[in-house]
Amino acid sequence: RVAAGAIAKKYLAAQGVQVRGYMSQLGPIKIEFKQWEAVGQNAFFCPDPERVAELEAYMDQLRRDQDSVGAEITVIAEGVPVGLGEPVFDRLDADLAHGLMSINAVKGVEIGAGFGCVAQRGSEHRDEMTPEGFLSNHAGGVLGGISSGQPIVARLALKPTSSITTPGRSIDIHGQAVEVITKGRHDPCVGIRATPIAEAMMAITLLDHWLRQRGQNGEVNVDTPRLTQR
Amino acid sequence: RVAAGAIAKKYLAAQGVQVRGYMSQLGPIKIEFKQWEAVGQNAFFCPDPERVAELEAYMDQLRRDQDSVGAEITVIAEGVPVGLGEPVFDRLDADLAHGLMSINAVKGVEIGAGFGCVAQRGSEHRDEMTPEGFLSNHAGGVLGGISSGQPIVARLALKPTSSITTPGRSIDIHGQAVEVITKGRHDPCVGIRATPIAEAMMAITLLDHWLRQRGQNGEVNVDTPRLTQR
Repeated sequence: RVAAGAIAKKYLAAQGVQVRGYMSQLGPIKIEFKQWEAVGQNAFFCPDPERVAELEAYMDQLRRDQDSVGAEITVIAEGVPVGLGEPVFDRLDADLAHGLMSINAVKGVEIGAGFGCVAQRGSEHRDEMTPEGFLSNHAGGVLGGISSGQPIVARLALKPTSSITTPGRSIDIHGQAVEVITKGRHDPCVGIRATPIAEAMMAITLLDHWLRQRGQNGEVNVDTPRLTQR
Repeated sequence: RVAAGAIAKKYLAAQGVQVRGYMSQLGPIKIEFKQWEAVGQNAFFCPDPERVAELEAYMDQLRRDQDSVGAEITVIAEGVPVGLGEPVFDRLDADLAHGLMSINAVKGVEIGAGFGCVAQRGSEHRDEMTPEGFLSNHAGGVLGGISSGQPIVARLALKPTSSITTPGRSIDIHGQAVEVITKGRHDPCVGIRATPIAEAMMAITLLDHWLRQRGQNGEVNVDTPRLTQR
């Protein structure tokens, strides 16, 4: 995935599209976004350098507990033009959900406000437009299955691995009860390594839609004024 | 969608698979599952008859506020055999995410524990097995992209419609600021009508994988004992 993602990222970068991700939650620890520069400078893809020590301490305790934990990754594509996607089945958000949910251990995918939109009111969720651009991005850059020109924002939930050294009940191929202990390499949080994979799947999906758009509308020029990107 | 879903449901029903959904949250009101019988007896697809009056009162107030609200739908497939899906790209959960996210207004899809798995520990999330069956279903019936024989459980988040009668800022095709008020039909919560569509998309996705499974492994008989369904 990451090999194809690297090619997709290169093509997109030449068009001014940048796809980047970070860890936004490790187990119970929510991590607020601070700066992209920090993400590549620690093993967690953590965007806040001041939180890294806390994450390391949490993981050390988790290893001592012989347990594992889940994580949430946020991935954002900036510079995506208006118009990628389609309105019914292979919507841009549907294809992103497919790509991101296909990553091992992912149990949930959100676009923009995601599950937060359930308790939102329409007057709060709708992204109002002014001549200077959108005033918010609850849609996460996709409206009606088509990119709106705003940054595309997706979040994914990764489950804790079941392969932990704490004994667990299972059955053998004859249906008899056995106890399972995972030995050898033990990954207490697979989410820590998921950020590059999430970036790759978003880049691949965007490039797919970029090529569809070129095939269908490559020679179509519109004279509608471009909306300011925010 | 619901027409194709009806055919898929009929085929699946003949194989002992039942696909049913209900509203699990309306705006800020979380609804606990009580009984399937209640779901068809109110306009909300609410599984708890004692909560319907509360939902009606909430919607009446919302209309007076000239606003809209989001909703969460839960959809469950019972009787799905072990083995539907594939382990890498077109995983059963990835295709479910694609189908459910392709429904208008959906901004998030979860399988099993979903985003709740982020803060879970592996010792809590893993579904232990005994000769009597699984002891829990945090996986939501899909493990490694393949059905586990447990009920398949998905949740989807639907956004509040932006077409509300409260004035909003927008721009016209010349990029000039305008005020928009939606007149005429006003749907204060599209999530109320989403349950049959969610059922349809899950049924269509399951039937797709059923036919793939028949094509690939239709004549393969395994003598591994069947796990008790719970």
